[in-house]
Amino acid sequence: MYSHTHLADTIVALATPPGIGAIGVVRLSGSQAIDICNRVFVGKNLHQQASHTLHFGTIKLPSGAILDEVLVSLFRNPRSYTGEDTIEVSCHGSPYILQRLIELFISQGARLAQAGEFTLRAFLNGKMDLSQAEAVAELIASQSESAHQLAMQQMRGGFSSHLGVLRQQLINFASLVELELDFSEEDVAFADRQQLVALVKQIRTLIRALLDSFALGNVLKNGVTTVIAGKPNAGKSTLLNALLNEDRAIVSHIAGTTRDTIEEILNIDGIQFRLIDTAGIRQASDTIEAIGVEKTMKHIRQSAIVVYMFDVNTNTPQTLQTDLETLHINKMNYLLVGNKIDEATTNYTQLFSPWADKLLFISAKEQLHIEQLKQHLKAMVLSNSVEPDAVIVSNARHYQALQHADKALADVLTGIDTHLTTELLALDIRTALHHLGTITGEVTNDDLLGNIFANFCIGK
Amino acid sequence: MYSHTHLADTIVALATPPGIGAIGVVRLSGSQAIDICNRVFVGKNLHQQASHTLHFGTIKLPSGAILDEVLVSLFRNPRSYTGEDTIEVSCHGSPYILQRLIELFISQGARLAQAGEFTLRAFLNGKMDLSQAEAVAELIASQSESAHQLAMQQMRGGFSSHLGVLRQQLINFASLVELELDFSEEDVAFADRQQLVALVKQIRTLIRALLDSFALGNVLKNGVTTVIAGKPNAGKSTLLNALLNEDRAIVSHIAGTTRDTIEEILNIDGIQFRLIDTAGIRQASDTIEAIGVEKTMKHIRQSAIVVYMFDVNTNTPQTLQTDLETLHINKMNYLLVGNKIDEATTNYTQLFSPWADKLLFISAKEQLHIEQLKQHLKAMVLSNSVEPDAVIVSNARHYQALQHADKALADVLTGIDTHLTTELLALDIRTALHHLGTITGEVTNDDLLGNIFANFCIGK
Repeated sequence: MYSHTHLADTIVALATPPGIGAIGVVRLSGSQAIDICNRVFVGKNLHQQASHTLHFGTIKLPSGAILDEVLVSLFRNPRSYTGEDTIEVSCHGSPYILQRLIELFISQGARLAQAGEFTLRAFLNGKMDLSQAEAVAELIASQSESAHQLAMQQMRGGFSSHLGVLRQQLINFASLVELELDFSEEDVAFADRQQLVALVKQIRTLIRALLDSFALGNVLKNGVTTVIAGKPNAGKSTLLNALLNEDRAIVSHIAGTTRDTIEEILNIDGIQFRLIDTAGIRQASDTIEAIGVEKTMKHIRQSAIVVYMFDVNTNTPQTLQTDLETLHINKMNYLLVGNKIDEATTNYTQLFSPWADKLLFISAKEQLHIEQLKQHLKAMVLSNSVEPDAVIVSNARHYQALQHADKALADVLTGIDTHLTTELLALDIRTALHHLGTITGEVTNDDLLGNIFANFCIGK
Repeated sequence: MYSHTHLADTIVALATPPGIGAIGVVRLSGSQAIDICNRVFVGKNLHQQASHTLHFGTIKLPSGAILDEVLVSLFRNPRSYTGEDTIEVSCHGSPYILQRLIELFISQGARLAQAGEFTLRAFLNGKMDLSQAEAVAELIASQSESAHQLAMQQMRGGFSSHLGVLRQQLINFASLVELELDFSEEDVAFADRQQLVALVKQIRTLIRALLDSFALGNVLKNGVTTVIAGKPNAGKSTLLNALLNEDRAIVSHIAGTTRDTIEEILNIDGIQFRLIDTAGIRQASDTIEAIGVEKTMKHIRQSAIVVYMFDVNTNTPQTLQTDLETLHINKMNYLLVGNKIDEATTNYTQLFSPWADKLLFISAKEQLHIEQLKQHLKAMVLSNSVEPDAVIVSNARHYQALQHADKALADVLTGIDTHLTTELLALDIRTALHHLGTITGEVTNDDLLGNIFANFCIGK
């Protein structure tokens, strides 16, 4: 799929979303890009134009008819996204015109680009490493501030540059260790074992931090699944409305994965919470029945955070304790919310003090303490250990590669400890280098590239 | 709506279709466009850059975070679409990023553009006349070669430049006629009546040709409504499949205006035919019953072309004659299609010779003569009188204005004939000039502009 001749082709694709708009852009990349466009462009000789210039003119069909008045952007190799000569033709945003233009370029020798092929070429031409290329797709798909920032950080280098420096040092050690193999009969040690241990430990410290960041990274990227549970009339729907009403502009409705719930997206300071309202679960009485428990339990097990609501006026510490145990909520990452404090006649703060550190009191109806609840939810995601510029792994492929590398590095340490043969030590180091290399793409193969770029849209 | 201060604003909008793509473009136009972009763009000082240049850099949010890596296209007044300073920012095609970028520009002083406002400004700044501006929207909406060519012709000047020359000559005459009013007591004639008559006749000849072209223009733009009628088992559905199968790539299904039919789009050499299959109309027997007749009649009345199919083996000239009269087909633009010639045992050509000039014989099942049928349908739309470069009116507003102008010019001729007073003659000439002027926009008002540009998408 990614053979040399294949990449010598000049490729073409629609770069803008399909549909009707003011403008649409068709992109050509490859050694023939300027020539192919020049053959159908009337206005100027594009061969004679400098990089990063814009040219107004018309596109002529073979019949002599004018297809459109266009603006051509010209980028010369290597100063382009792909690193190749690139042409972007900005047309009127008519699907008919865009389709005809792509057909015209194909008739002039271009080939329709495969999904992600422009970015693949950027990677192969050294314009970005593999983790940066992956971030391009994640950037385009990002729908919240936190997902956007994660992707942007990764696209602009992220942890891969840091990891790259350490990997280079490890490569130097690997060379020395492998040199020892050439002199194995002489029993020399070119690679200082103490320094190697120090380097491996340094790399493992970074890797462990990155591995630890994955849970957060995943949550920031995909949203925090948050179940709102509680007995009927605890005020779950009222709370949901109170949470969403304040933020109507960035609320959308998504059909849930099960038929009996609706997911609502709540955005708190850029972090997406996927709120699952279990209020839809029918319960015959106000005791938690078997069917209700089972469905609620299923949602609770799949959620990152459980918000358990109760009416402070109709519950006692005993009933609350029983319900939490029945639902196994104490095994989850949970927050208790005592509702209806506007109607309270007792000293509820004192009454429920055993749960003080996991408990907020609100009135969903009167919208009391809703903002505190939001900030509490946000804090449950961002623990204090996360710094603003912390490097976070959010890509499952990177997470796996880091796990494999960490395992191999642990073996290196054990090997040194146990005076393993140099051959086996060299093998463990190479394994670690391999896995670290797959993250940034120093080590790659067609299957890996195929998997990654197949997830891109055509035109990127 | 179109006051002077309003147009002094710098406007912003998404220029590409909404949705996810490789890239998305946000466009800024107005005196502050470069300044507004420069305040958030990191890379170069845009104030110092030449027109028609491209600049890579980043967009920074007020928080200091990077929103995206972008390419900025810079166009300086008057060398832009609107005639104003214009910036186009090409971002990653993420709806989140594009939305944030538009918000950022608004926070820096831009205003969200109204529908069509970029093109309105192009018109008001003299970059195009009104008929050309209208053609921009039609070009974007065009879905077939013929609709595209009509819109392109109109956008590149079309008949408006030709009409403009004649209108200018008429203005010169109008000045002379109005000069006579100033010297009315002296009974002088500055405007040579014979030359005026010749000019008016020349203008009317052009107007009549344009008026005559409207029926065709409308059909080329919107498609040719074509009903396929006939008794059950005449082979209507088989014919429809035969017509569509050969052209599967450019066929789409559109729910018909009534529930009992489906419209199919057939593209014959760039002309769209909207085929209405009346096969769905249930008929209790093979005689044409009342209910079937009524429904079929309704479709026939609304169609531009009727294709009436019959089985050459089960019909006689008498039954055919009866059916055509029952359905009033002989009052329509119709084509008779004798089907099932592959099963024929009689000399059907001789049998149905009375209809020879309106009749084709085919076998829908064996796909015999389907191509001839298509070419016949095409010829029914394009009469021989239409030349390849003929100027065609396809816009209903232009058609009306031409009708009004023609009426006024007829009055001018009658006036000269009947020695009407110079005052009334001047009035008729001014009326004609007014209506001709509304086509290209020399004469305009806010209501007219509002109506026209409200049909544009935002961002154009």
